[in-house]
Amino acid sequence: MSGRQIVSRAAEALGRLRETKPLVHHITNFVVMNDTANVTLLIGASPVMAHAIEEVEEMVSLAGALVLNPGTLQSDWIEAMILAGRRAHEREIPVVLDPVGAGATTFRTRTNRRLLEEVQPTIVRGNAGEIGALSGVGGEVRGVDSVGGLSEPEQAVRHAAREWGSVVAITGRRDLVSDGERLLAVDNGHEWLTTLTGTGCMATAIVGAFAAAEDDPLQAAAAGLAAFGLAAERAARETTAPGSFKTAIFDELYELSPDRLADGARLFELA
Amino acid sequence: MSGRQIVSRAAEALGRLRETKPLVHHITNFVVMNDTANVTLLIGASPVMAHAIEEVEEMVSLAGALVLNPGTLQSDWIEAMILAGRRAHEREIPVVLDPVGAGATTFRTRTNRRLLEEVQPTIVRGNAGEIGALSGVGGEVRGVDSVGGLSEPEQAVRHAAREWGSVVAITGRRDLVSDGERLLAVDNGHEWLTTLTGTGCMATAIVGAFAAAEDDPLQAAAAGLAAFGLAAERAARETTAPGSFKTAIFDELYELSPDRLADGARLFELA
Amino acid sequence: MSGRQIVSRAAEALGRLRETKPLVHHITNFVVMNDTANVTLLIGASPVMAHAIEEVEEMVSLAGALVLNPGTLQSDWIEAMILAGRRAHEREIPVVLDPVGAGATTFRTRTNRRLLEEVQPTIVRGNAGEIGALSGVGGEVRGVDSVGGLSEPEQAVRHAAREWGSVVAITGRRDLVSDGERLLAVDNGHEWLTTLTGTGCMATAIVGAFAAAEDDPLQAAAAGLAAFGLAAERAARETTAPGSFKTAIFDELYELSPDRLADGARLFELA
Repeated sequence: MSGRQIVSRAAEALGRLRETKPLVHHITNFVVMNDTANVTLLIGASPVMAHAIEEVEEMVSLAGALVLNPGTLQSDWIEAMILAGRRAHEREIPVVLDPVGAGATTFRTRTNRRLLEEVQPTIVRGNAGEIGALSGVGGEVRGVDSVGGLSEPEQAVRHAAREWGSVVAITGRRDLVSDGERLLAVDNGHEWLTTLTGTGCMATAIVGAFAAAEDDPLQAAAAGLAAFGLAAERAARETTAPGSFKTAIFDELYELSPDRLADGARLFELA
Repeated sequence: MSGRQIVSRAAEALGRLRETKPLVHHITNFVVMNDTANVTLLIGASPVMAHAIEEVEEMVSLAGALVLNPGTLQSDWIEAMILAGRRAHEREIPVVLDPVGAGATTFRTRTNRRLLEEVQPTIVRGNAGEIGALSGVGGEVRGVDSVGGLSEPEQAVRHAAREWGSVVAITGRRDLVSDGERLLAVDNGHEWLTTLTGTGCMATAIVGAFAAAEDDPLQAAAAGLAAFGLAAERAARETTAPGSFKTAIFDELYELSPDRLADGARLFELA
Repeated sequence: MSGRQIVSRAAEALGRLRETKPLVHHITNFVVMNDTANVTLLIGASPVMAHAIEEVEEMVSLAGALVLNPGTLQSDWIEAMILAGRRAHEREIPVVLDPVGAGATTFRTRTNRRLLEEVQPTIVRGNAGEIGALSGVGGEVRGVDSVGGLSEPEQAVRHAAREWGSVVAITGRRDLVSDGERLLAVDNGHEWLTTLTGTGCMATAIVGAFAAAEDDPLQAAAAGLAAFGLAAERAARETTAPGSFKTAIFDELYELSPDRLADGARLFELA
């Protein structure tokens, strides 16, 4: 597909998302729950946060996508993630994993590897450190931040996608998305995103919303990252520092129309 | 009472609330904790969030009202809610229940029914789907959103109030509040409230604060909803999208005086 | 040291903080997690929120400081706090405790006393009620708010510091910081801080970030409180109510340079 086609398909997915308002089930971390629920609503989907083992299977049965984010890891939540993930597979709805802080501690790396194996997510979105650490090609994580990039990120994202059988997105100055064969790049975004907590988690939430409205997970991941990056870019133009920038991102997500996304997405295929 | 009397009594309750700064004990969900604590403070009360079984009875003994919100349900928190709720009854302080997502899963419906029975809340505030599902008169819930309204909401709210022996509030474009006999309506509010997470929970928190300053729970519920709706209405006039709208609601709650509430409340009794 | 020296040392610490971007490990409460992560980032450090018993020791091994905040107390989190605190001691990195609501319930008072004994925090920051209740010199707490100040706060802060072998900070209109001998005062701040939830916790988070960049804990605590108070002061000048004030604090923290801190810090030694 040409870059033009990728972009217009992203805009169509946003149109469908706003029209169908799919339910997105999140099992996510305490830090970002409010923000990820809000961005899910503002982009046009309907979020529900539910983690009790007694209800996750029934809840995911109502949803169009499942987002798993073990950012404030604890063992009983992981069991709920696995239960919900398996049910999502049976129902053939997409599962998006955000392996927050994988690589920082043995427990995080091991747990995220377990989620990769037992849930087989449709899409995995992380920073360079997290994806590198999980797929064993390097990358360094301190806390939840990537420190020291990957020497060959384009190969790393393809490698991880093949290894896991998932679409993989590495976000950073340039976002890279691959299904193991094709490789897309997204150049939307703004440096202030690194000065706020949970912006990676918000990007994952937006990807989850797109995945509920777009059958091709490669296209869904790239479209979601372009939408979030474009909202951030526009928000940065109206503000002078990260506090008001965050508020403006929420405004921009709500105001993002398919036409605006088609005009502003810097989304293309790499050779 | 005439509409005029209801409104002036609401303004008096706000005056007392700001003067006495009652402690409101919340056992609430992870998504909205920060927002509901903030709106409680901004309207003039003092919030405390505490859920440990070891302390909830002692904490509620200091409070003027208890707010229960099982929006991110898990079983140990429910036990704490029941303990705190019983102690609140012994102390004869009002208990406000927000049955988030009742109707969406069996676990949520069953748990909220259990809270209704074992705690016998003074006030229950939910959307049409939640109240309908709980009282068995219809209403549909997807995730935490009401989808498909009640065919006869005025009868439904009266019916639920009689069945549970509680004041019941159904919020939506028009809020309805009943004690089983009288029926009040609140026409304050703004459509952007549906584009943000936790606005229903914030409304419940404000109702909890009013319940600590107003003996008549019918009047407290209606006054709280009018106050929150009026703040939202005014906030919408100053902003262009939901992100900045949310910030402006907080500003407006802080600046809401009894006089302003008396002027702006669209609060009246239905025949 | 003269007031001038204390202030210029505070500015130097901020410079080091922004340069070295230390990792600060938080085990904190559900209400403020998002806000405390954000202020940690905006002042220049790197936050990680992690509470699982399986990983806290490994996580704190990567950190430059540990912040413990049992504001939404539950017993398994306390065990994690103690494990992490002990490991921090072995590594000789500073531990900052925020005894939220100590004095309000027996469970909170007892748990915070246990943390004082078993973790021996480097710095304790609380309001007058919390510090008074914990050290047994009076002070009253209702929920998480101090009601009724200490009759002799300057003696109380010195007394507590000696008793616990920690630097102790009591925040309020004037912040007082002591190591048992010396006594510093910070006059930065704004009254709107009392109308928002979690501003005490944010102050503690900023102190934690400074503690990771400044060896003298007395100096770190005072510098952190001056930085937070100055950001609040400047934010209040640009806004008219607490909602937008909070957003502006975040902007101001990001924009706070060492020079601006040196100019604006009202930080001095009391005789």
